Amino acid sequence: MGSRSDFDTVSGALTVLKQLKVAYEVRVLSAHRTPQLLSSYAARAEQLNFSAIIAAAGGAAHLPGMLAAYGRVPVLGVPVQSRALSGQDSLLSIVQMPAGIPVATFAIGPAGARNAALFAAAMIATTDAAMRERLDAFRAAQTQAVLDDPYFEDEPQAGEA
Amino acid sequence: MGSRSDFDTVSGALTVLKQLKVAYEVRVLSAHRTPQLLSSYAARAEQLNFSAIIAAAGGAAHLPGMLAAYGRVPVLGVPVQSRALSGQDSLLSIVQMPAGIPVATFAIGPAGARNAALFAAAMIATTDAAMRERLDAFRAAQTQAVLDDPYFEDEPQAGEA
Amino acid sequence: MGSRSDFDTVSGALTVLKQLKVAYEVRVLSAHRTPQLLSSYAARAEQLNFSAIIAAAGGAAHLPGMLAAYGRVPVLGVPVQSRALSGQDSLLSIVQMPAGIPVATFAIGPAGARNAALFAAAMIATTDAAMRERLDAFRAAQTQAVLDDPYFEDEPQAGEA
Amino acid sequence: MGSRSDFDTVSGALTVLKQLKVAYEVRVLSAHRTPQLLSSYAARAEQLNFSAIIAAAGGAAHLPGMLAAYGRVPVLGVPVQSRALSGQDSLLSIVQMPAGIPVATFAIGPAGARNAALFAAAMIATTDAAMRERLDAFRAAQTQAVLDDPYFEDEPQAGEA
Amino acid sequence: MGSRSDFDTVSGALTVLKQLKVAYEVRVLSAHRTPQLLSSYAARAEQLNFSAIIAAAGGAAHLPGMLAAYGRVPVLGVPVQSRALSGQDSLLSIVQMPAGIPVATFAIGPAGARNAALFAAAMIATTDAAMRERLDAFRAAQTQAVLDDPYFEDEPQAGEA
Amino acid sequence: MGSRSDFDTVSGALTVLKQLKVAYEVRVLSAHRTPQLLSSYAARAEQLNFSAIIAAAGGAAHLPGMLAAYGRVPVLGVPVQSRALSGQDSLLSIVQMPAGIPVATFAIGPAGARNAALFAAAMIATTDAAMRERLDAFRAAQTQAVLDDPYFEDEPQAGEA
Amino acid sequence: MGSRSDFDTVSGALTVLKQLKVAYEVRVLSAHRTPQLLSSYAARAEQLNFSAIIAAAGGAAHLPGMLAAYGRVPVLGVPVQSRALSGQDSLLSIVQMPAGIPVATFAIGPAGARNAALFAAAMIATTDAAMRERLDAFRAAQTQAVLDDPYFEDEPQAGEA
Amino acid sequence: MGSRSDFDTVSGALTVLKQLKVAYEVRVLSAHRTPQLLSSYAARAEQLNFSAIIAAAGGAAHLPGMLAAYGRVPVLGVPVQSRALSGQDSLLSIVQMPAGIPVATFAIGPAGARNAALFAAAMIATTDAAMRERLDAFRAAQTQAVLDDPYFEDEPQAGEA
Repeated sequence: MGSRSDFDTVSGALTVLKQLKVAYEVRVLSAHRTPQLLSSYAARAEQLNFSAIIAAAGGAAHLPGMLAAYGRVPVLGVPVQSRALSGQDSLLSIVQMPAGIPVATFAIGPAGARNAALFAAAMIATTDAAMRERLDAFRAAQTQAVLDDPYFEDEPQAGEA
Repeated sequence: MGSRSDFDTVSGALTVLKQLKVAYEVRVLSAHRTPQLLSSYAARAEQLNFSAIIAAAGGAAHLPGMLAAYGRVPVLGVPVQSRALSGQDSLLSIVQMPAGIPVATFAIGPAGARNAALFAAAMIATTDAAMRERLDAFRAAQTQAVLDDPYFEDEPQAGEA
Repeated sequence: MGSRSDFDTVSGALTVLKQLKVAYEVRVLSAHRTPQLLSSYAARAEQLNFSAIIAAAGGAAHLPGMLAAYGRVPVLGVPVQSRALSGQDSLLSIVQMPAGIPVATFAIGPAGARNAALFAAAMIATTDAAMRERLDAFRAAQTQAVLDDPYFEDEPQAGEA
Repeated sequence: MGSRSDFDTVSGALTVLKQLKVAYEVRVLSAHRTPQLLSSYAARAEQLNFSAIIAAAGGAAHLPGMLAAYGRVPVLGVPVQSRALSGQDSLLSIVQMPAGIPVATFAIGPAGARNAALFAAAMIATTDAAMRERLDAFRAAQTQAVLDDPYFEDEPQAGEA
Repeated sequence: MGSRSDFDTVSGALTVLKQLKVAYEVRVLSAHRTPQLLSSYAARAEQLNFSAIIAAAGGAAHLPGMLAAYGRVPVLGVPVQSRALSGQDSLLSIVQMPAGIPVATFAIGPAGARNAALFAAAMIATTDAAMRERLDAFRAAQTQAVLDDPYFEDEPQAGEA
Repeated sequence: MGSRSDFDTVSGALTVLKQLKVAYEVRVLSAHRTPQLLSSYAARAEQLNFSAIIAAAGGAAHLPGMLAAYGRVPVLGVPVQSRALSGQDSLLSIVQMPAGIPVATFAIGPAGARNAALFAAAMIATTDAAMRERLDAFRAAQTQAVLDDPYFEDEPQAGEA
Repeated sequence: MGSRSDFDTVSGALTVLKQLKVAYEVRVLSAHRTPQLLSSYAARAEQLNFSAIIAAAGGAAHLPGMLAAYGRVPVLGVPVQSRALSGQDSLLSIVQMPAGIPVATFAIGPAGARNAALFAAAMIATTDAAMRERLDAFRAAQTQAVLDDPYFEDEPQAGEA
Repeated sequence: MGSRSDFDTVSGALTVLKQLKVAYEVRVLSAHRTPQLLSSYAARAEQLNFSAIIAAAGGAAHLPGMLAAYGRVPVLGVPVQSRALSGQDSLLSIVQMPAGIPVATFAIGPAGARNAALFAAAMIATTDAAMRERLDAFRAAQTQAVLDDPYFEDEPQAGEA
């Protein structure tokens, strides 16, 4: 992530990664304040054959795009909800990459971070049967949670209508 | 893609897929006009263990999100540039997925489609050494094209400044 | 509605439905987490000959459009005010449906939910004289509330101007 | 509609109405240039027990909202694509009605007009079995058109993937 | 104004009107809930030869435009800051009037209301010498307030730079 | 106006002014390129007791606001449709004036210019009976033009519905 | 700055200027309420050969553009985060200057103010070796702050991945 | 600039630089396709003590921000008008830099490029008397061009009003 203050956005992603047993590291890396690290970090991610890099950043968010420029590892970009523009700047700065260097972009804020983690798991699941099972179980539980409690007390239910 | 008219947006992606030797199929599938196919198509993609589904759609674009809801295969969403709102509606309808069901979103229009194809190749490359080589070559060529011709005739060049 | 958290948005609609004696049921149904229910719920609504389905959802809001895709019953879409984009994403995801599958869309948030309920009553009133009377009374009372108290204490009133 | 120039937007709706045998009239009625007609037109629509009024308008579009204010007949609003703001002004002027007076809003431009017509048919179909059949046939044909031709010449098809 | 809740927006305007001795009345008049009053109120304003009508409204704000449609008296529109869209809907619904019926529009919220009051005074001042003097005094005082205190304690002042 | 290229936007206003026999002058005056003229032009407008200044400008449009700052004469601002942002920048730069210095703002582009001219006539009409008559005639003709031709050939008319 | 209330936005800039030993003055100067000062202030800045003027303003922000119009000294514009539109109006009013009169624009709010101060220092540094050293030290410290603490307690670190 | 296709945007800037005798070089440098050059180019600009780097880029425009991150030389960012979003994405990606790394941003498109060139000249002029003279002459000529021809044939001029 681009700044320590982005941790709140990212923490939900870490919960998902733990739950799905995806190995990960988490660190601050700023496209603007530590540009010299971009190249080496991207190279290291290639060497360690990372499945993906989840990069969260806000405002004129250059971190995801630059990591994608410096290396081949798939980059999952998460737009942080910025103060003045609520993440509209973050979203456009990440998603509107020109043809040639892709960044897979997710929703603004914590929902996007969680989904980036789920997407990373889904990518791994395409070649990893155990992950496939864990992911299917996760999705089934998520569905079941809605099915278990679809009605509201004191409100008419299906059948009465 | 959601409609035959989206083919112009998608065709650049097909060029990339061919160039990188990514096996693919291409078809129209409308979240709104053929909703009954969504479930079976997503299931088929799981059974054939597709690496990814690239889904392009415009306006209130529901195709990528619904394919992601119906199955586990990673969905890459491409917002088609819509007539009235230039794809702002397509982008938000695809990228702002709630936590739980991810869609990896790319830029509005042809650039996004090309990048979705490159991203699919990069996903495959994480576990496929031959793809890794083809992708690295593709990226190197792209870089070289800029390096080969950075100056403009009749304009001062570096060193003269 | 797409999530339990949307209940605050929807509750004003329920008050209106009760007041106008429109029979209704209320439940959570998620386009993304319970997509398998969409088809059967839309079919059931057709079989029970529902006058309308009010569907509230936020962000990349696909619930209203998918219910409209799966069945013939008129769908009234209510965009929930989302956290980052204040419902602009919800609104565009619901209203910008492509030609062929309509969703009647109302304002972002509780005002839209109330109006969806009033619209459902107005639809019923076109063929139900008793509803017509109740709706006319409701509207007359609403007008009278403004007429009863148009001035402000300590401020000059019409005639003094 | 609010102006003769809106006819291009509306004409697709008329095609749908004819096809589904919905009786209709079409006329120009301007909230701003002929405000004195609003009240009487809304009253006439009530007296003739119209199923719906489709009102298309652009810019600061007040026609749908004012017809809804003056009468009980359901109003379907179609935002015309305006010159400077591409219909964003039309959309917000129509959809963001305050609680109390609903306008069912559809997409900007011709797609919205067609959908308003389809929605009117769907409203009528809730109490008219013949309309139900015509609408079901229309929707089935629309689905079949996609199913009949989902592939592209010279591109790989399902099964080859 | 369109609703009692708009009083907070409008109250600053009343202060200005009192200060500049502009005779006024203030009342609630809803384009949507009391449309029958629009025509008579506009006619009354013409008969009493009002210099202007200040109309504040929010969301799909039709009050200013409809008062302008029903009568010749200059209408000054004030967009109320709405809940979901911060007054962007109010602004476009008021300012984007089609050619033929003008509404003079001011900023979103209390600043716009104050400025509408000042503008009304300036209109009157074009043919009323006493108002001209009061307005010039008001503007001079406003300028002087800035001139009297342009610096900040503990910060360097002009001359030291 | 701020630039010769704004003449297309403004010319419709001149037609209205001629038609309503409002005396006027028209000139280029640039807030940015001829700032030294702002003060003297505003002073001259006060001395000649202009009823209003119509100021059209685009982009970061400062002309209307600065003329309002330099003098007491009512300023009617017309946002020119700019190239990149279609006048959204022009609109906000003109309408969002802080409390204290009002600019009456009209729609983006030629419609706004025409309406500014009509508004100037309406302002004059509050104290000029002859103008009142010309304006009433203008408005009546405008209404009559809609009333004279509300139907479309080959389309069903009222009564047949 | 345009108003005393803008001080919160600007104060971070002053901290930077002090830290980098850039001589400065700070004062309120309103384009709208004290327009007569614009010309003389810009002339004074030229005479004293200021390196730059940092001008913060909100809403229809004319201060930076007018100072740039009145004089040759480089103007650095800082859009203040406005109440209704979160500084989108301020940003466009400052950055969208027409060709001929440049304003260098920075981010909305305090981040933009700090960056304007850093930019002023960087401008001075192009011809001032001591400033160059101070600026390099400032930037190095900023980088080091990220490098010193890139990890999060209880989260896996690089190497464990 | 980030791509050869940005030359149209930039060419106006080159005309200004030539006119004002500012030495310059012009080249393509892509943040995304040639990221390895960013660091060395920024270092070279520092070594040659460039007065400024004008960086034009579109979409998710990272070139200006990354050049500013890699070096101390003042960066002037020009948002290129992008296809789908008309440069709104380019603008936000450039101007919304986080505190610490400034990019001076100008208007979207050719106007911004011209102004960046003028701003570079103004920066140089703060320590270069000859440039000061050339810039003053340029600005005076620009003002004179407006003054020479402020009226329109066949339209009333000042004095007749």
